Amino acid sequence: MTVVNVDQLKNYEESNPVRNRKGKSVKKMCNEKVLKKRVPIIGWLPKYNFVFFLQDIIAGVTVALTAIPQGIAYAVIAGLPPEYGLYASLVDGVIYLIFGSSKDITVGPTAVMSSLVAKYTGYSQDFAVLSAFLSGCVILLMGIFHLGFLVNFISKPVINGFTTAAAFQIAAAQLKAFFGLDGASGNYFAESMSNFISNIKTARLWDPILASVTVVMLFMLKRLGNGCSRTDGFTKQMRWFISMGRNAVVVIFGMFVAYILKITTNNEPLKLIRDIGSGLPTVGLPPFSTSSGNTTYNFNEMLEVLGPQSLVLPLVAILESVAIAKAFAIGGRVDATQEMIAVGLCNIGGSFFKSMPITGSFTRTALNYASGVQTPAGGVWKSLVIVAALSLLTSAFYYIPTASLAGLIMTAMYSMVDFGIFARFWRNSKIELMLMLVTMAVSLFIGLEYGIVAGIALECLILLYNTSKPKITANSIRSDSSEIVTVTLSDSLSYCAAEHVRKSIIEASNNAAPDSVLVIDGGNLHRMDSTVAINLMNLIKEFDKDSRTVVLLNFKEDLVKLCTDVEPKLGNKFVKSNKPLDFIEVSIKNA
Amino acid sequence: MTVVNVDQLKNYEESNPVRNRKGKSVKKMCNEKVLKKRVPIIGWLPKYNFVFFLQDIIAGVTVALTAIPQGIAYAVIAGLPPEYGLYASLVDGVIYLIFGSSKDITVGPTAVMSSLVAKYTGYSQDFAVLSAFLSGCVILLMGIFHLGFLVNFISKPVINGFTTAAAFQIAAAQLKAFFGLDGASGNYFAESMSNFISNIKTARLWDPILASVTVVMLFMLKRLGNGCSRTDGFTKQMRWFISMGRNAVVVIFGMFVAYILKITTNNEPLKLIRDIGSGLPTVGLPPFSTSSGNTTYNFNEMLEVLGPQSLVLPLVAILESVAIAKAFAIGGRVDATQEMIAVGLCNIGGSFFKSMPITGSFTRTALNYASGVQTPAGGVWKSLVIVAALSLLTSAFYYIPTASLAGLIMTAMYSMVDFGIFARFWRNSKIELMLMLVTMAVSLFIGLEYGIVAGIALECLILLYNTSKPKITANSIRSDSSEIVTVTLSDSLSYCAAEHVRKSIIEASNNAAPDSVLVIDGGNLHRMDSTVAINLMNLIKEFDKDSRTVVLLNFKEDLVKLCTDVEPKLGNKFVKSNKPLDFIEVSIKNA
Repeated sequence: MTVVNVDQLKNYEESNPVRNRKGKSVKKMCNEKVLKKRVPIIGWLPKYNFVFFLQDIIAGVTVALTAIPQGIAYAVIAGLPPEYGLYASLVDGVIYLIFGSSKDITVGPTAVMSSLVAKYTGYSQDFAVLSAFLSGCVILLMGIFHLGFLVNFISKPVINGFTTAAAFQIAAAQLKAFFGLDGASGNYFAESMSNFISNIKTARLWDPILASVTVVMLFMLKRLGNGCSRTDGFTKQMRWFISMGRNAVVVIFGMFVAYILKITTNNEPLKLIRDIGSGLPTVGLPPFSTSSGNTTYNFNEMLEVLGPQSLVLPLVAILESVAIAKAFAIGGRVDATQEMIAVGLCNIGGSFFKSMPITGSFTRTALNYASGVQTPAGGVWKSLVIVAALSLLTSAFYYIPTASLAGLIMTAMYSMVDFGIFARFWRNSKIELMLMLVTMAVSLFIGLEYGIVAGIALECLILLYNTSKPKITANSIRSDSSEIVTVTLSDSLSYCAAEHVRKSIIEASNNAAPDSVLVIDGGNLHRMDSTVAINLMNLIKEFDKDSRTVVLLNFKEDLVKLCTDVEPKLGNKFVKSNKPLDFIEVSIKNA
Repeated sequence: MTVVNVDQLKNYEESNPVRNRKGKSVKKMCNEKVLKKRVPIIGWLPKYNFVFFLQDIIAGVTVALTAIPQGIAYAVIAGLPPEYGLYASLVDGVIYLIFGSSKDITVGPTAVMSSLVAKYTGYSQDFAVLSAFLSGCVILLMGIFHLGFLVNFISKPVINGFTTAAAFQIAAAQLKAFFGLDGASGNYFAESMSNFISNIKTARLWDPILASVTVVMLFMLKRLGNGCSRTDGFTKQMRWFISMGRNAVVVIFGMFVAYILKITTNNEPLKLIRDIGSGLPTVGLPPFSTSSGNTTYNFNEMLEVLGPQSLVLPLVAILESVAIAKAFAIGGRVDATQEMIAVGLCNIGGSFFKSMPITGSFTRTALNYASGVQTPAGGVWKSLVIVAALSLLTSAFYYIPTASLAGLIMTAMYSMVDFGIFARFWRNSKIELMLMLVTMAVSLFIGLEYGIVAGIALECLILLYNTSKPKITANSIRSDSSEIVTVTLSDSLSYCAAEHVRKSIIEASNNAAPDSVLVIDGGNLHRMDSTVAINLMNLIKEFDKDSRTVVLLNFKEDLVKLCTDVEPKLGNKFVKSNKPLDFIEVSIKNA
């Protein structure tokens, strides 16, 4: 059976933001190509067939089996009632079906997004829903205005430092549930750790046992699936399926243990999720005002609570979804704009169904892909299974032990940390290691949202520093009678490099004989700003005063124009030649 | 007579901040070379002779003739009593004598520094003195920690925008005195202009006439000196001297007119400086507390009034003094560190004598140079003349018309603006023009200190954008049987360029035949960070999956190490060759 992949049928031409911004978009907006690009379902639905249908169902159900335990776990991370984790996966399936550009990507709650929301849910659950709505608006607007390129300005060390810190923070917050401790957990790493240490004596027996078993089971079930795939024979197929559904397996196992323990001991020796809201959420506008205790917050006050640091939510949402889109794109082509529009709309739509902020989920996307999903329709089946679970299974969810969820979350966090990267940065770039560690430290000890901002600021400073020290090489060619010193400029010189250029040329000149010919080779140079040009021409003027022979070799036309605009008299210093340097020497001597 | 220039005798070896910072400084600190570098007078004093002595006196007196009217004018700009402008030139001569590294540079009040101080002097004059002390400390510390390189991060468009705005603002504030208006002037451009317009009906007769005559005289006296120098014959020497002392000439002329008018009309038809504090200032600690009206400010409250925006004062001081040092340095070598130490100490020392913040003055430095100064001792003579003026001439200063000062200041501001630069930026770089105009607009309409900060922020954004789009060229070589596509990388790739690199390579690959060989030429590349390396290797991995033939050509050893650390399996993709590309083709085909 040869299954034609819908992605390959689609028109994948990339958006061209520059062209669009220049005003040629109006005409294009109306044509079918753009419509297909912005509402991708139009492109693939006519080609939909029964084989796709079956494969999408299988993938959808498989993903749902992970989405349900993960959703509940992430609701716990966010400090929300467990059912909110399921609410967050209700409408994204339908919205992504229409606007999604990738067949594989699954949108929903993620650990990092949930932990970013946690500090607001202490006020009221409504803050999570409002932040989903607002994040959705920001993501959508950034998509419409083609601002997705902004995530390119966040480097790997910063992303790694941020996700590592998030993993540590989320894992630390789960220590309480892992050991079944009393008392509070914490929204910050230090808070969680200090609460853990001060409450460690309240540790229960069965919670840490079950949590540890959960972790061991997850690692073993993962290995069980090694070398198997869904297209193998029956035994391997089953091994693959159980391995893929391992999150559901361990939670069901935990529920089973909890139920047996309750019956045999007539007690509840494990902490359980207990009451979970049954049925679908009430549909309505996102909460533009809310009350908590005796305090009522209107919209402005809610915005004040969220603060500018909540802008990290849409940023992280874009970062996660674009990264996933890239990882699963065919031929490396990603329509980041469309991805942002889809994720933005999923958040906005979700906020009418009490969703917390959502984005592309790496684990479930990988599972979706591995389950052989053929179109974004797989997500609809996932949502349908979750609707069913909310309607029928909530009484069974009573028995989900929080220790099982803690084990599940901690295992997920373990796989989120790239431990090898510390050594790799250490070997290759101490400065990038430092950048990552600073991002991590600020994230852990001040707050995740401050960590990413500190990382971006620091990497900009490093970039500025590097830009101010472009590589400039000096060579000396000596013959019996004369010496030529060649200073080769790099290919791009910005204002902050002006002083470095000046110093390098002076140094090369001082190291050479006073009667040597100084050749400044601009053959590679393709960009230079006024600051550099002014600085360079001032220097040439000084050399000229000192009667030093200087030649500016092979500068591009526009750069010559820029320089001579500063010092028209020095136009004769510019020389074009593709002959070797000794020919230049001869021509200078003859001049 | 051959006069040996002291600057040429001095050891000008540049400071090496990196080496010092690495801890090797302790040993060096003790040796004579460093002492001579940090206390330059030790180097030149033993070689001092009578010829130097005479020339320094002549230059010092000439400079004083400009420093006195300018000092009074700048005190007026700063909103201080006129004598403060003279206080600011009392001790700098002695301090710069000891620590100054350039024979030409004259330290003292400048128009821009004065206008930056103006908004604080409304509270109390003590704020000007305290800000001199604090600025001095900041400048000194930045000098000691070799942070002078920070001014390299301010580009010409930003500096031009800032100084142009300062010139407009200062000139606008002088409109009141130019026309002899009643009412207030203003610390901001818009404020000054609106006050000017609403008070224009109070314009007097004699003030604008005298101010206009002053302006015309200044331009004519400037032309008088054209083609003359102090070493010419007597007539030319006199012409040169009068031209150089034109600031004093017009002020004396104004005083004379005011005196005549007073006698003839038995009235004061011109607004005059009137009472000017006589004698030397009382020496004492800088004011760490002050009172204004009924309010008393302690040190913390004074700091609050100054605010973080007052950090622009030391920044501008460094900017001005380093720029001047560069302009007057021989062979282009500037010891920015020593210059900052000297200017810092001048401010700290001056604050004990009620000085306002000071820095290198371009006009007076040029005058000092033109007057043939031989050593920093010239500054001492300048200070002595000012001491004499404060002791003997203050009763004569009563008659200085504010209109003369306004004409003097406005003429100076006219020469501060580089009108040609608008056209030059327009021709060569619209983005730099925009940068300059934004800096100017923010400086004029929000405040000078915000303008420079906005300019720096904007130029950083432009730099980031440029860095994210390095030049990557693709070439295709087609033969009958095959095609080679070469993608040549630029010489430095930072994290923000990762996506651009990826897109460029994919585009080049898509434009070529599927069986073509893709050569990624890293021969020029000398710097790449992990983000780019990871992105590149992910792309190569994808190409490899698609069985696309890719070769990474001539990457430097450390970059190969960086890349293979990410994907050890792809080490075989790296090829070194300085043969033409068709040889590579053959070797690939044979491989």
